[in-house]
Amino acid sequence: VRRRGAPGSPQATYDAEVAPGWDILGNANGGYLLAIAARATADHLGRADPVTVTAHFVAPGRPGPLAVDVSSVRAGRRFATARAEVRSVPPEGDPLTLMAVLATCGELAEPGSVVLVDAEPPVLPPPEECVSHRRTDDVHVADPDRPSAPTFMDRVELRLHPVDAGFGVGDPSGEPRVRGWFRLPGEEPIDTIGLLQVLDAFPPTVFNARLPFNWVPTLELTCHVRSRPAPGWLACEFTTRFVTGGFLEEDGVVWDSAGTLVAQSRQLALMPRG
Amino acid sequence: VRRRGAPGSPQATYDAEVAPGWDILGNANGGYLLAIAARATADHLGRADPVTVTAHFVAPGRPGPLAVDVSSVRAGRRFATARAEVRSVPPEGDPLTLMAVLATCGELAEPGSVVLVDAEPPVLPPPEECVSHRRTDDVHVADPDRPSAPTFMDRVELRLHPVDAGFGVGDPSGEPRVRGWFRLPGEEPIDTIGLLQVLDAFPPTVFNARLPFNWVPTLELTCHVRSRPAPGWLACEFTTRFVTGGFLEEDGVVWDSAGTLVAQSRQLALMPRG
Repeated sequence: VRRRGAPGSPQATYDAEVAPGWDILGNANGGYLLAIAARATADHLGRADPVTVTAHFVAPGRPGPLAVDVSSVRAGRRFATARAEVRSVPPEGDPLTLMAVLATCGELAEPGSVVLVDAEPPVLPPPEECVSHRRTDDVHVADPDRPSAPTFMDRVELRLHPVDAGFGVGDPSGEPRVRGWFRLPGEEPIDTIGLLQVLDAFPPTVFNARLPFNWVPTLELTCHVRSRPAPGWLACEFTTRFVTGGFLEEDGVVWDSAGTLVAQSRQLALMPRG
Repeated sequence: VRRRGAPGSPQATYDAEVAPGWDILGNANGGYLLAIAARATADHLGRADPVTVTAHFVAPGRPGPLAVDVSSVRAGRRFATARAEVRSVPPEGDPLTLMAVLATCGELAEPGSVVLVDAEPPVLPPPEECVSHRRTDDVHVADPDRPSAPTFMDRVELRLHPVDAGFGVGDPSGEPRVRGWFRLPGEEPIDTIGLLQVLDAFPPTVFNARLPFNWVPTLELTCHVRSRPAPGWLACEFTTRFVTGGFLEEDGVVWDSAGTLVAQSRQLALMPRG
């Protein structure tokens, strides 16, 4: 993410790129786009951490060059708020808006204070007993010969709870829930912007619900980041309570290796008309 | 909410007003401002229903004139997305941005389809056995003589579950939860934009948690509307699982009189530094 021109203006444009491999069947991963938008926004606002970020996905992203337009709404003492818009800028043809973002950034503590927690991290087998979709991994690989396996899954280390991983081989758990571990390859540290990507990295919960959906496009994703994560595997859980009115929500919770809640998300996805 | 100038442009400004009485101790109710912003946005986009709306509250609202600037992001077949900004425009002095909004609107069904629901409406005593803060009501009024009772509570019919209503008289339930009924006076119908107001009308959950907070300013509120509500009382439930890192989330669910989930919300609020 590179800023064009001089700092100090309330508006700025950043150049970025959907690197090859950060896609799922040709569509840029939504969390990846969101992390690009948040990186530009946090830079523009001069605050390290996205505290609350909402993205509306208006068109699927493609590999190639992007521009991120950021404009400040308000800069306060503790928090600053901006809007961002991610546009695909193909070498030929017209630019296309992919995502509209509204974000408030600040400086978070690590670990944050804990006053009240009425939830627990998901109970997961150790990462080496979970299921990977990364073809180079040493653990059980769900479907190594599937030619269309998302290359995105090679860019991250994602290990699914075995109970929640059966959907890929026709054995869904029956519950709209997906649990698993996440880290970056080579144990690269994840910052608070990277957490946004974690919140959109897992397969859809409803793949486990025995419903006739094989895709559920995201309309909107809101992420709250509570604390900078400790190093190590992140324990993640995504659940759905309502598939109604043509929509479904997916609620995510991410805990770090010290057992601290670091991020929460909710997305609204579209039930495909079948 | 009145539009300035001719239709057809991708940007528009609407004039509105914080009517007297729609405040809590002088601050305009957030859900009221949000409903104003959503009404301008839905009008501008030509779609009846807000499907997903996020507001970042950047300054407290005051009674008086407002301007809402709306600009389209994308209009698709089923959904259209816009940004909005609510500004206070005092007769003298500079305008002040109060709220930044990102919204996707469409046309919702009534009632919406139900594929999977893993939750139930809150179990509430009938409205006449619940607790009101409306001084003119015939039912039990929590604190009729309190001179500073929010006048906002006179503008709506809000009946709290007796278990969740004790915080006002020094007897909090101990659980960060608030349940109750909502309708408008005179049984005025509530549309999907009115639901946004319902989602921000109840007292904070943490007032019941025996924590030393007497105010919890909202940073961000996201509302999902699933279905147009049937007439009658709405059953509402708000809960909090995490008070950590200096923040707390509040999750809301609204069911209509037919037992259909009509809206969901999550807000991120700030834990006051004590």
